[in-house]
Amino acid sequence: MKAVRLHKYEQRPVVEEVPEPTVAGPWEVIVRVGGAGLCRTDLHIVEGQWADRSGVGLPYTLGHENAGWVQAVGQAVTNVAPGDGVILHPLVSCGLCRACRGGDDMHCAAGRFPGIDADGGMAELLRTSARACIRLDPSLAPAAVAALADAGLTAYHAVKKAAPLLSAGTTAVVIGAGGLGHIGIQSLAALTPATIVVVIQSLAALTPATIVVVDPNPAALELAGSLGAHQLVRADGSQVRQVLELTGGDGAEVVLDFVGERGAQADAWAMTRRAGSHFVVGYGGRVQVDTIDLISTERKVIGNLVGTYNDLAELMVLAAQGRVALHTRSYPLEAVNQAMDDLDAGRLQGRGILIP
Amino acid sequence: MKAVRLHKYEQRPVVEEVPEPTVAGPWEVIVRVGGAGLCRTDLHIVEGQWADRSGVGLPYTLGHENAGWVQAVGQAVTNVAPGDGVILHPLVSCGLCRACRGGDDMHCAAGRFPGIDADGGMAELLRTSARACIRLDPSLAPAAVAALADAGLTAYHAVKKAAPLLSAGTTAVVIGAGGLGHIGIQSLAALTPATIVVVIQSLAALTPATIVVVDPNPAALELAGSLGAHQLVRADGSQVRQVLELTGGDGAEVVLDFVGERGAQADAWAMTRRAGSHFVVGYGGRVQVDTIDLISTERKVIGNLVGTYNDLAELMVLAAQGRVALHTRSYPLEAVNQAMDDLDAGRLQGRGILIP
Amino acid sequence: MKAVRLHKYEQRPVVEEVPEPTVAGPWEVIVRVGGAGLCRTDLHIVEGQWADRSGVGLPYTLGHENAGWVQAVGQAVTNVAPGDGVILHPLVSCGLCRACRGGDDMHCAAGRFPGIDADGGMAELLRTSARACIRLDPSLAPAAVAALADAGLTAYHAVKKAAPLLSAGTTAVVIGAGGLGHIGIQSLAALTPATIVVVIQSLAALTPATIVVVDPNPAALELAGSLGAHQLVRADGSQVRQVLELTGGDGAEVVLDFVGERGAQADAWAMTRRAGSHFVVGYGGRVQVDTIDLISTERKVIGNLVGTYNDLAELMVLAAQGRVALHTRSYPLEAVNQAMDDLDAGRLQGRGILIP
Amino acid sequence: MKAVRLHKYEQRPVVEEVPEPTVAGPWEVIVRVGGAGLCRTDLHIVEGQWADRSGVGLPYTLGHENAGWVQAVGQAVTNVAPGDGVILHPLVSCGLCRACRGGDDMHCAAGRFPGIDADGGMAELLRTSARACIRLDPSLAPAAVAALADAGLTAYHAVKKAAPLLSAGTTAVVIGAGGLGHIGIQSLAALTPATIVVVIQSLAALTPATIVVVDPNPAALELAGSLGAHQLVRADGSQVRQVLELTGGDGAEVVLDFVGERGAQADAWAMTRRAGSHFVVGYGGRVQVDTIDLISTERKVIGNLVGTYNDLAELMVLAAQGRVALHTRSYPLEAVNQAMDDLDAGRLQGRGILIP
Repeated sequence: MKAVRLHKYEQRPVVEEVPEPTVAGPWEVIVRVGGAGLCRTDLHIVEGQWADRSGVGLPYTLGHENAGWVQAVGQAVTNVAPGDGVILHPLVSCGLCRACRGGDDMHCAAGRFPGIDADGGMAELLRTSARACIRLDPSLAPAAVAALADAGLTAYHAVKKAAPLLSAGTTAVVIGAGGLGHIGIQSLAALTPATIVVVIQSLAALTPATIVVVDPNPAALELAGSLGAHQLVRADGSQVRQVLELTGGDGAEVVLDFVGERGAQADAWAMTRRAGSHFVVGYGGRVQVDTIDLISTERKVIGNLVGTYNDLAELMVLAAQGRVALHTRSYPLEAVNQAMDDLDAGRLQGRGILIP
Repeated sequence: MKAVRLHKYEQRPVVEEVPEPTVAGPWEVIVRVGGAGLCRTDLHIVEGQWADRSGVGLPYTLGHENAGWVQAVGQAVTNVAPGDGVILHPLVSCGLCRACRGGDDMHCAAGRFPGIDADGGMAELLRTSARACIRLDPSLAPAAVAALADAGLTAYHAVKKAAPLLSAGTTAVVIGAGGLGHIGIQSLAALTPATIVVVIQSLAALTPATIVVVDPNPAALELAGSLGAHQLVRADGSQVRQVLELTGGDGAEVVLDFVGERGAQADAWAMTRRAGSHFVVGYGGRVQVDTIDLISTERKVIGNLVGTYNDLAELMVLAAQGRVALHTRSYPLEAVNQAMDDLDAGRLQGRGILIP
Repeated sequence: MKAVRLHKYEQRPVVEEVPEPTVAGPWEVIVRVGGAGLCRTDLHIVEGQWADRSGVGLPYTLGHENAGWVQAVGQAVTNVAPGDGVILHPLVSCGLCRACRGGDDMHCAAGRFPGIDADGGMAELLRTSARACIRLDPSLAPAAVAALADAGLTAYHAVKKAAPLLSAGTTAVVIGAGGLGHIGIQSLAALTPATIVVVIQSLAALTPATIVVVDPNPAALELAGSLGAHQLVRADGSQVRQVLELTGGDGAEVVLDFVGERGAQADAWAMTRRAGSHFVVGYGGRVQVDTIDLISTERKVIGNLVGTYNDLAELMVLAAQGRVALHTRSYPLEAVNQAMDDLDAGRLQGRGILIP
Repeated sequence: MKAVRLHKYEQRPVVEEVPEPTVAGPWEVIVRVGGAGLCRTDLHIVEGQWADRSGVGLPYTLGHENAGWVQAVGQAVTNVAPGDGVILHPLVSCGLCRACRGGDDMHCAAGRFPGIDADGGMAELLRTSARACIRLDPSLAPAAVAALADAGLTAYHAVKKAAPLLSAGTTAVVIGAGGLGHIGIQSLAALTPATIVVVIQSLAALTPATIVVVDPNPAALELAGSLGAHQLVRADGSQVRQVLELTGGDGAEVVLDFVGERGAQADAWAMTRRAGSHFVVGYGGRVQVDTIDLISTERKVIGNLVGTYNDLAELMVLAAQGRVALHTRSYPLEAVNQAMDDLDAGRLQGRGILIP
């Protein structure tokens, strides 16, 4: 079968023929891939940023956001059958450790993460386990929801953790209105009565010297508004001040930072009010906070990592109800490097999906 | 009356005569001080570290940990009467803002903090409000519990926030076994079934060059053990490794850092396990964490600030039951500078209490 | 001034002249009433059902759902000033007991409940306290929101308690689509992603012998749908079966019973799924459950009582945002008995509001 | 092998030879039984009370509280190996349904309950699954902990649910100091700072006519005290009044009813304070509460069913630490009917354990 294989770090992956995976254990499931999401993390993997953390041996197959149809199942599998449409939880978890027994799949003591530390879904077939499979509502096509398996799940999970803090009259700030941010906005609107303020990152934010002449991305602004945002703020250097003004000088009860680098992480802290919570979702930068600031305002900094199996099942309910949707652009599997180029160059509106 | 007055930053306070405070509003209470705790924050105030934050006008009276007997009350006061023994919540809160209405006294939108931004309790009499007064069980002498009003409350509040995370089989690390740490250890033992590991700061920790010859403080080690600690670890440079070893390489579900400076804050993060919580109580240093570490392990950094009125009432129950006790050393009010010298030089075992 | 006074149980109240209340304590507030809601509880008071529980001396003034404008304030009052539009929390709470200090205003150890155990708001002026006042957004007229002070608050509070149980994919059943039920439906839609099933009580439910010929109330059905309900079920005797069918035979995670009598309480329990929660809001009947049913399914029965001050403040935010609204019908104060007749006879669509 | 088999309801089980179970699926585990607890539910099963609920076919093997050593495992099993000492969670859960994925093992949509609806552990060997196995600390003998698998787990689970309600200064009432009650008392002492009041059921409670001459069970009183109870109350007819007196007339924040019949369930409700929680653990009777009492005091009635896998793992930690222990009396498997007679006649102090 065809697969997108990484042979060497700092060198683009190639599409090549590899043997088809087969059911090797009683718990295993082989999935015919309907769509595999392309993520900025894939670029980081190619750059070698994850080499030490994942310890994966090269070559291997990329792709950690996958959906498709069940092709074959091991003898112990009872929850799915060949032909079922499925989305796959990103972790293949053991089901037996304390974290798994409490529902915290992402903290499994023996989990695998296909596409990160094992062969992933940018291929015709993917080997996973019964525990990763969620059957899709017939109204949902695998390629349309694949990117919800990781990017969407991560945003939904962070919002779900924040929701108890967001009663009527509170404010939730979303920094970054890209793939994750869009799901975050829609999830906030579905789960909470909070006022949603979206901070749009733009070229202006990246190149302060050119603020005067570079416009923010008007399409992003419009899209965010249509998804449930109540206020939009352009990251033009005045974003912290603007959020403080919108919140009576206090800042927001919850700030969800989907960027996590290039200063967004410092903005997020500065936008968080006394007794509030700063949720870190995006990564790349470093949070630096004086302990006297942490204690004198009793704020919190909260890391977030994908989500639970039940979180993903809930997100599929919202998707089937039409309350959460993701803009996507399809590429054939062979065009993986064009898709990566588009993503890298900022030409990719919405999420790129590879179709084998 | 006599009072300990600060006239100028970087210059020690003086004991002098000032007019007695009187009841000026319907909600006010005048308390005859039975004991005022001396805190490292008092040294920091003298050094001027709080000048900008508090904005207090000089001269003013120090003392933010106070207990005594009610002397006079305003016409609207119904919860205490002259003669009652009382401990005072450190904040004089408004009772009307959203935080007060939800019980979060320490986030009052209009609170005063006697001893920090208003005249405090190192004096014969202190002006406060009905909302700050908790009547003492007859078994509790004001001077014996005064230091629980702030130091004790802060430690108890942090432990109470951590308690839901500490089921049987988990580990709580306490960094620092001084005034706050001791209350933290006793509170953990009363509220949770967790294994308590205490990291003892010692001269050795401060002067690594002399580790070989300087012993840790054996009295501190013994005392911590008698209060409920299950494991003691000396901060000799190997403390992170030791805690990891005690927890099977994983780190602790909860780390309570009562030091917050001189590297303790970095140790605390390194001792916190995946999905765990790092509580910041002590201050002075800076927390610095890469966002990729926050997200890939889903850890949290949580600030802590004194506690609620009900927290202090609960702590008084534990004190009356003998489950929480604090070692103290009394000084007459006039000896404030000797007490400060002793604290500064590390000669003060337990908490210093000024007795007017 | 004019007031609606009850002189004798089982005898309708009269509108008569009484002395105007004046500010007697530093905490007190006199409010010029803009609207006073009429509630089924007022009928029950007249019938004498509350005589023993309230212990109120006759004659006294009815009216426990009140909004208006501040007329005068005591010397300690800082949160409102004459002229302010206000809605009043139903309890005048002490602010000093453990319940008040934790935000549980409805469990105040020394609370008064104007209109139940003290003079209420069916009058030109009402005496209350600063702690009961919430300033209204200028867009909200007192008469339009008065009924949210008790009926609305009660429904919102129950929904807020239920919200953490209502993730995407769950079902919330609302029994009764009257005054409270309508607020319940709108609150569920604002706070949760749950599927909302509304069970409409109708004459049919009251007179089973005539089920065949009596139609349910089609206006109620239509209104419920427009407020956010996803499914409507007529209480025609098959309502339990219908709810079970809508939930795959399992029942709902949350059932909110706004009726609490005439069999609704038994229906509510039967509609609650394994591990689910049955919230009791309406009253009059008796819950009877075998302990083996409680333990073998681990269900809960949860009482609900008005709500907190902050709950009411949040409900005012939703009202100002237009997310929660109540249908009302105004009567002049003098027409109190016509309004009571209309309520008793089922002729009153929406909530009756008395305008002094 | 030998097994205790029930052939006919209302007729005592017999010990007879049956074929040994073998590993039939990849997930299965065969356990050599070290001890099987005898429970009042076993008497109820014999009486036929569970016939309709369990639907089990006769004959079958009793025993739902089991511990022993792993004898053989299926090919997919990785968490235990032959020779391991294990205690067994009472449910064989599927691991794939929403309840299992959230950690609520006792609400598994496809669970089996050996000893109730499948062959149990009063036999030399028991067939279970990898998901039910918890490895024992070497210090714990299977026969000593077997009864913690169900009775102990149930009590611990209820206490764990109650713990967040039990801050310092609150009261927890335990009704019944038998097998479950003893674990409840010890769990409360380990997990909370609450004052623990134990209501001892005695012959006096069962035969009111003889109250004057029948003493309560002094051994039970003494034992409860040694386990952590702070106050003991005899159920002599005045128990509600006594609990109210001990709680200043208010009742307790939490009442755990381990009896659930013969009036204990009504006592439990009457002992529960405003805003408090009545936990139902024992069964046999019926809870009957007027809805006006539920709403005017905002109390809760909460069912409880065994516990989660992680709950049982935590209980094993407390057992290994010596914080929870159960008095037991051993019988050989052949003496099952003598053990049942002793239990029925009240001659069995502590928990009866059958040793194959």
